[in-house]
Amino acid sequence: PRDAPAPKRDGARAHGAELVFYDPGTESREAIGAALARERGAPIVRPYDDFHVIAGQGTLGLEAAAQAASLGLRPDRALIPCGGGGLAAGAGLALRHRLPGIAVHPVEPAGFDDTARSLAAGRRVANRPGARSICDSLLAPEPGALTFALNRTQLSAGIAVRDDEARAAMRAAFRHLRVVVEPGGAVALAAALRGRPAPGGGVTLVVLSGGNVDADRFREALAAA
Amino acid sequence: PRDAPAPKRDGARAHGAELVFYDPGTESREAIGAALARERGAPIVRPYDDFHVIAGQGTLGLEAAAQAASLGLRPDRALIPCGGGGLAAGAGLALRHRLPGIAVHPVEPAGFDDTARSLAAGRRVANRPGARSICDSLLAPEPGALTFALNRTQLSAGIAVRDDEARAAMRAAFRHLRVVVEPGGAVALAAALRGRPAPGGGVTLVVLSGGNVDADRFREALAAA
Repeated sequence: PRDAPAPKRDGARAHGAELVFYDPGTESREAIGAALARERGAPIVRPYDDFHVIAGQGTLGLEAAAQAASLGLRPDRALIPCGGGGLAAGAGLALRHRLPGIAVHPVEPAGFDDTARSLAAGRRVANRPGARSICDSLLAPEPGALTFALNRTQLSAGIAVRDDEARAAMRAAFRHLRVVVEPGGAVALAAALRGRPAPGGGVTLVVLSGGNVDADRFREALAAA
Repeated sequence: PRDAPAPKRDGARAHGAELVFYDPGTESREAIGAALARERGAPIVRPYDDFHVIAGQGTLGLEAAAQAASLGLRPDRALIPCGGGGLAAGAGLALRHRLPGIAVHPVEPAGFDDTARSLAAGRRVANRPGARSICDSLLAPEPGALTFALNRTQLSAGIAVRDDEARAAMRAAFRHLRVVVEPGGAVALAAALRGRPAPGGGVTLVVLSGGNVDADRFREALAAA
């Protein structure tokens, strides 16, 4: 999107990418991508609705389970940031394989809780147009076909957090973990800090994922106390 | 000191500490600590000039050597932030034990390059009074007696960096490593980013240590581009 964070734009360029910008309000990236792929005979790598991408995201679940075991902990629930559902699908599969019985909750920005509502409805439902959020990495229009086919069988209830809660989680990660997290990467921590899901004792595993945040936006988050 | 960063003050209180503030311009923390220890029959744990503290700092050298080995790298030189010299003494000993022949350079803030000048002089020399730096964790008045006894036998030439170079290193750590580093913890990275010591090929190990930085000071560092 035209307003992608500078670290993502610069990082993609540094890896040799050609960037094509679009306006998410009026254009479809899927249509633009399909046209470019036809023109150039290029393959499309979808950011989440792709079995290989989902499998790659699964490695996060394996690593998290191994880290918990090395600390002598057995998580009862996991909170995972969720946009199109690829991370939740892959990491959820791996976590439930390693830790049978663990409850895996997707966490989404308020206004973009399509996965939470789709899980409740038992079918894919889209977000209402016009919603806004600072969590730029989690703004997929609806759950993926592949990701939801997996997630409907394995995820527990979804949780939605507000932008100010995401900012508070960014500040907490800065202060207590000394880690830089982007808004969308902080939503699971935001849920945990607000006591969601309702604490029932036990161990909660929280995924922080993604540090592609502009210095200016990070400064805003630190200032918004 | 009266102007200690909030994360240090709050962290110490959270661990149950009673805080006694002083003015580094007009008072001596060593004298205040000695008087309190006499009054209360309490032991003093010095921040660097203590064999046990130095030994503890040695674990950083062991971990760094193990991490380099796991990456298949053999560092030719190490850059280590230096105040009273405890980290350089302990980590330097461990690194030179694990990686014989490695050159270990202490990195200090400009105006507080007492270890660099002491190494050059072959004896402990103090900093000139009145110098200022944002690197609050590295403002010891002179090398410790124990730390310099070790460091004079093992350290290579010292390097001094300016505050604006430390801020640039904090920004680089934010942007490329997604890590929060305090000014004094970023000086070794600052030296490396400026190509000091003069690059001679090979592998440079850089220690980033300490994330006790106020949100306001961190925001200033991000803004000072």
